[in-house]
Amino acid sequence: MLISNLAQHLSGRSTCSTSINYKTEGIVTRMEPNYAQRVAKAQQLMKEQQIDYAIIGVGTDMFYMTGYEKRPSERLTCLVVSKTKDSFMITSFFEAARLTQVKTFYSILTWKETEDPMNLLRKVIDPSERTRIAVDERGWAIFLLRMQKALPRAEWTSANTVIGPLRMIKDEYEIERLREGGRRADRLYEQILQLKFSGKTERQLGEEIFELAKEMKMNPARPAGIASGPNGMSPHHNSSDRVIRAGDGVWMEIGCGGNVNGYVIDKTRSVQVNPATDRFKQIYRIVEAAHQAAFRYVRPSVTCESVDAVARKVISDAGFGEYFTHRLGHGLGLDTHEEPYMVEGNTLQLKEGMVFSDEPGIYLPNEFGIRIEDIITVTKSGAERFFHSTHELQTVA
Amino acid sequence: MLISNLAQHLSGRSTCSTSINYKTEGIVTRMEPNYAQRVAKAQQLMKEQQIDYAIIGVGTDMFYMTGYEKRPSERLTCLVVSKTKDSFMITSFFEAARLTQVKTFYSILTWKETEDPMNLLRKVIDPSERTRIAVDERGWAIFLLRMQKALPRAEWTSANTVIGPLRMIKDEYEIERLREGGRRADRLYEQILQLKFSGKTERQLGEEIFELAKEMKMNPARPAGIASGPNGMSPHHNSSDRVIRAGDGVWMEIGCGGNVNGYVIDKTRSVQVNPATDRFKQIYRIVEAAHQAAFRYVRPSVTCESVDAVARKVISDAGFGEYFTHRLGHGLGLDTHEEPYMVEGNTLQLKEGMVFSDEPGIYLPNEFGIRIEDIITVTKSGAERFFHSTHELQTVA
Repeated sequence: MLISNLAQHLSGRSTCSTSINYKTEGIVTRMEPNYAQRVAKAQQLMKEQQIDYAIIGVGTDMFYMTGYEKRPSERLTCLVVSKTKDSFMITSFFEAARLTQVKTFYSILTWKETEDPMNLLRKVIDPSERTRIAVDERGWAIFLLRMQKALPRAEWTSANTVIGPLRMIKDEYEIERLREGGRRADRLYEQILQLKFSGKTERQLGEEIFELAKEMKMNPARPAGIASGPNGMSPHHNSSDRVIRAGDGVWMEIGCGGNVNGYVIDKTRSVQVNPATDRFKQIYRIVEAAHQAAFRYVRPSVTCESVDAVARKVISDAGFGEYFTHRLGHGLGLDTHEEPYMVEGNTLQLKEGMVFSDEPGIYLPNEFGIRIEDIITVTKSGAERFFHSTHELQTVA
Repeated sequence: MLISNLAQHLSGRSTCSTSINYKTEGIVTRMEPNYAQRVAKAQQLMKEQQIDYAIIGVGTDMFYMTGYEKRPSERLTCLVVSKTKDSFMITSFFEAARLTQVKTFYSILTWKETEDPMNLLRKVIDPSERTRIAVDERGWAIFLLRMQKALPRAEWTSANTVIGPLRMIKDEYEIERLREGGRRADRLYEQILQLKFSGKTERQLGEEIFELAKEMKMNPARPAGIASGPNGMSPHHNSSDRVIRAGDGVWMEIGCGGNVNGYVIDKTRSVQVNPATDRFKQIYRIVEAAHQAAFRYVRPSVTCESVDAVARKVISDAGFGEYFTHRLGHGLGLDTHEEPYMVEGNTLQLKEGMVFSDEPGIYLPNEFGIRIEDIITVTKSGAERFFHSTHELQTVA
């Protein structure tokens, strides 16, 4: 069962060095991340936190730790990291050949279609011991339920305490990919401003932006999110069949999804369909001021909640506090939402290399919503933006 | 906290009755599923199985039970179904407006950005009671970990035992959407056979098919999976930069992902790039015979494992049993892989309305792989195919 001969057999003839499909044009640093080093760092944190094993299913945590990308499935694939010993990858026998497409620094244990992968897990982790096991947060609940049954003496916790601290601090390899994502989003936005908005439904406009993004090789995962007129009051509005009209305020969320080597883009801008109104301009200025206040405030060692508070104060002082209904921002990297979160109650201190959105909004019932979102990173003494599109209010046709 | 005034406020002005973006051209039955009835059926199973609550996070289970579609997120949204009482939807305050886009038969409980949704859960489910709680299998592990902490006296199990039996039996609404998916996949396949294969990389061909599918409004989620020549031996091969050459065997997996009202397409065909070889023809005939044997055998009351065995016997008798490394098939509906699974050990009996893939394969190291996959449904006395593309071996340019 141990070691896939298949994988060894295949390793000589694989025709591509990586399975990742994302485009990398425009990137200077092509060096692969050092996955074994990332695992070693996680092991250090496991020792400090008395976590005996971390079990990482397929998803962005696994991609971060191994470079292996795979869609989630009912067939268990997971990396088992021990606090002190070598790591194992448990995967289906017939899927093991895929691992020849990535560098492996772990042993491969395979299970066949008629076997229970939990039996393999019990060979790697002694079920009679009282172990403390961390699981990745975004794996499927069914695997956790099965593992809890297979290892009934174990205590279960989140692996985010050992992976989150690593993923939160982006290195130069990651920053460069996020910067490239920013450049692509900026080019897309230039094109968007040339589009005709009025007369189209939100869905049609979202699809049109989707097509533009694909032509620009941005690998968008789905149509842009468009909220026009009163629909804009719902901060997570789902593009509808509402027809966009003259005078509508419109916010657009663009570029979500895996893009540059898996690093995502998330950018929101708000525009007004001609003619511009004083009311829209007034609210826009408040949101923009809140965004800038937070941006100017960001630097190492200030707390996440204080960044949120700085932006919120601008909006509250202008009398619109109750219409800023969500937190200021979220971390971003391989996931569109990840730590750190800029939200009241989060006393985590910012560090150089953290990346997150600065996206205040005001959502006025029956009128419109305005949100301005840039992704920024904490530098040695302040912050850097990944997007450089203008923050001046734009009107569209 | 209870009831979103926002939602009530908005319900009068929503401009679209459903948030689902999937195309429905060609469908006769447009009637919406009766979600409340599905929940009532699940409650019946909960009573039989002594399950007090089912907690269903965002995903296909929630879509099946409510029609509400939402991407998973770190912000908890879940439907709480009680065995005997009314249901609740727990969601973020600022996302509640999205629920105006679907019919609701449950109360809405909202939590604000600085509140812990587990406090809401503890209001709905008494933490001092010894309850038995089922969770949807594909929700995030972190929510299960948090719920286990919030309700420490509860016993946790999979909700698949109450939702799976419903989802497994497709009604006329669902069958019609799967049939329409089949028609689309057939039209796409016609186009694919006209493409030039040789000289392109697997990825290029996969992208080309992706573009075709998009032009045909199939809403494909990702490029087709292409495995050429010896790469075909890995049944879940990831399209690579290998250049397809004359004489290559090529298998293609097309149309995965949400398509017709969320119902997916999954279809595999194997072709040979001219010139055809006797070896390829020989293996193709065996795979095709295995596929047909299973198809002819399928009818109500036979077991899932016996369907697998019937196909496997054909391949084993021909001397290639060890190269058919995966189960014969998987159920399909809102998910590409769901129950029932055609695999040794699964003694579940087929029932009318079940839908699954019949996809035997032979994967020969250093040569090629061949798989033929059709999605079929169990009828009163046999089986119906959703795809009607020829099973004759096709050669391509």
